[in-house]
Amino acid sequence: MTRILLHRADGKTDAWVKDFARCMPDAEVEIWRAGEPVAPYDYAVVWSPPEAMLADLAKVKAIFLTGAGADGLLKFGDALPPNVPIIRLGDAGMGVQMAEYVAHAVLRYFRRFDEYEAQARAGQWLPLPQHPKEDFSIGVLGMGVLGTRVLEALAPFGFPLRGWSRTEKTLPGVQCYHGADGLDTFLRGSRVLVCMLPLTPDTSNLVDRSNMSKLPAGAYLINVARGAHVAEPDLLTLIKSGHIAAATLDVFRNEPLPSQHPFWQEPRITITPHISALTLRRESVQQIVEKIGRLNKGEAVDGVVDRTQGY
Amino acid sequence: MTRILLHRADGKTDAWVKDFARCMPDAEVEIWRAGEPVAPYDYAVVWSPPEAMLADLAKVKAIFLTGAGADGLLKFGDALPPNVPIIRLGDAGMGVQMAEYVAHAVLRYFRRFDEYEAQARAGQWLPLPQHPKEDFSIGVLGMGVLGTRVLEALAPFGFPLRGWSRTEKTLPGVQCYHGADGLDTFLRGSRVLVCMLPLTPDTSNLVDRSNMSKLPAGAYLINVARGAHVAEPDLLTLIKSGHIAAATLDVFRNEPLPSQHPFWQEPRITITPHISALTLRRESVQQIVEKIGRLNKGEAVDGVVDRTQGY
Repeated sequence: MTRILLHRADGKTDAWVKDFARCMPDAEVEIWRAGEPVAPYDYAVVWSPPEAMLADLAKVKAIFLTGAGADGLLKFGDALPPNVPIIRLGDAGMGVQMAEYVAHAVLRYFRRFDEYEAQARAGQWLPLPQHPKEDFSIGVLGMGVLGTRVLEALAPFGFPLRGWSRTEKTLPGVQCYHGADGLDTFLRGSRVLVCMLPLTPDTSNLVDRSNMSKLPAGAYLINVARGAHVAEPDLLTLIKSGHIAAATLDVFRNEPLPSQHPFWQEPRITITPHISALTLRRESVQQIVEKIGRLNKGEAVDGVVDRTQGY
Repeated sequence: MTRILLHRADGKTDAWVKDFARCMPDAEVEIWRAGEPVAPYDYAVVWSPPEAMLADLAKVKAIFLTGAGADGLLKFGDALPPNVPIIRLGDAGMGVQMAEYVAHAVLRYFRRFDEYEAQARAGQWLPLPQHPKEDFSIGVLGMGVLGTRVLEALAPFGFPLRGWSRTEKTLPGVQCYHGADGLDTFLRGSRVLVCMLPLTPDTSNLVDRSNMSKLPAGAYLINVARGAHVAEPDLLTLIKSGHIAAATLDVFRNEPLPSQHPFWQEPRITITPHISALTLRRESVQQIVEKIGRLNKGEAVDGVVDRTQGY
């Protein structure tokens, strides 16, 4: 029997328990609750666990993360149990959702649908000149599983595609840049900047005034990673100056975005409530069960987080 | 020397003349003007020619159309010169534009971005349940060059794809239906109906109350073909009843859409000013020049319009 300790930040655990029961009938799943004693468990499955859970996480063989990033756990730093492997999900249905979100935003800006909507609300019939596609390069920051999936979905539309990653990567049809040295060139040629980075000390605030100023004039920003990647006041300044034409943001420093936040008042900023990619429960449970099977047999699994790199 | 008679409905002929000069230096291009005598010409290149031009079209070896449909010429019926071949362009850059337009509209409805935009305008942060993708089948009416291109661009997003055509066709990954017999089944399973048909007497008003009622409740309509395909009052009725959740329309019975038209007042109808696919001049001229070369050598060319079928 495998014992699993489950935590969901939203408290919605019933459907997860049912999915585990279906995929792994011999597993015993317990919901973690603050202040209640915890029996010995084999594995923990968590989403943004509270600090109070850390002591219990020290006792498991591995911790499975069910969100797209590891930052919600790694933020605890040295307070984390040092020797327990932390395991990310692979795509788990998030890649295609990110592709949907990003493709929609890119096409909306490229074909000026935001402007057509504003015109239609005013009862205006006015064809606008099209952006030349050769000037509409899409630059994806972060070429992990999700960034790669987004680039693949954009390929049929014929945009010039660029990607940047910390370490060198190659992807067919994509102009690839890497490391600190490659960042400037990457930014200077990216008309649309798509942030899909993991959040680490190195990437926090990466999209700041200095880096956004390197984008071509009239650039667009799409952020589907973490709010902390973007210096929010800098973005507002560059939008007001016109250097950034518009931004689509799914993530923010504080979520829900506070009602007093100036982004709400800026029509060139499109706000969505952190919905670009939801963890798909069934796919996630299947992946975790498959990985537990391998771990129980002493085999290696994909997705083990490198704590020094932060992802 | 090849003599070409040129007509553009918008009167913007200079750039076309220059492109012909570059692609076919030995051609002589003359602009057609009402009431002016016309010398003998080899070929005509037209976009929605006026009735007054028909007599001159009788004297050429072939008529090239530069728009996406043949309806703007075939509407003259028996007044057309009977023996002059009418030649459509192939894709000429329109396919990818249609794909951009349709993919944007599909993703916007699937991911509820229209609702998120309305929420954001009201300062609301509220994640909405996602539509299950298996229920979000995309049905493309018309599987010609453009319809096929649109289906191919939608493939990476994993929607169930369906297509309907007058005659039997097959396309990998697409559930194909054809003819009058196949239409009902096609409609009953299409959550999003994308109209990409040629306009012919058979397809005029095809998207009427009876056919739209066969779509699943909460269906979406996207029309990038011709306004006359859709019975506009029927669409309004079905949107008000909720059977059609929303529509994105690029084409209308009367264009520009008259300012008194009720569509302007219906927030569930998205209006764009006939911009889904512009004829790309350079690509078009290259194609026409290539086809003229073949015709001059007595060879066959693609895209000859079948007048009895209307496309």
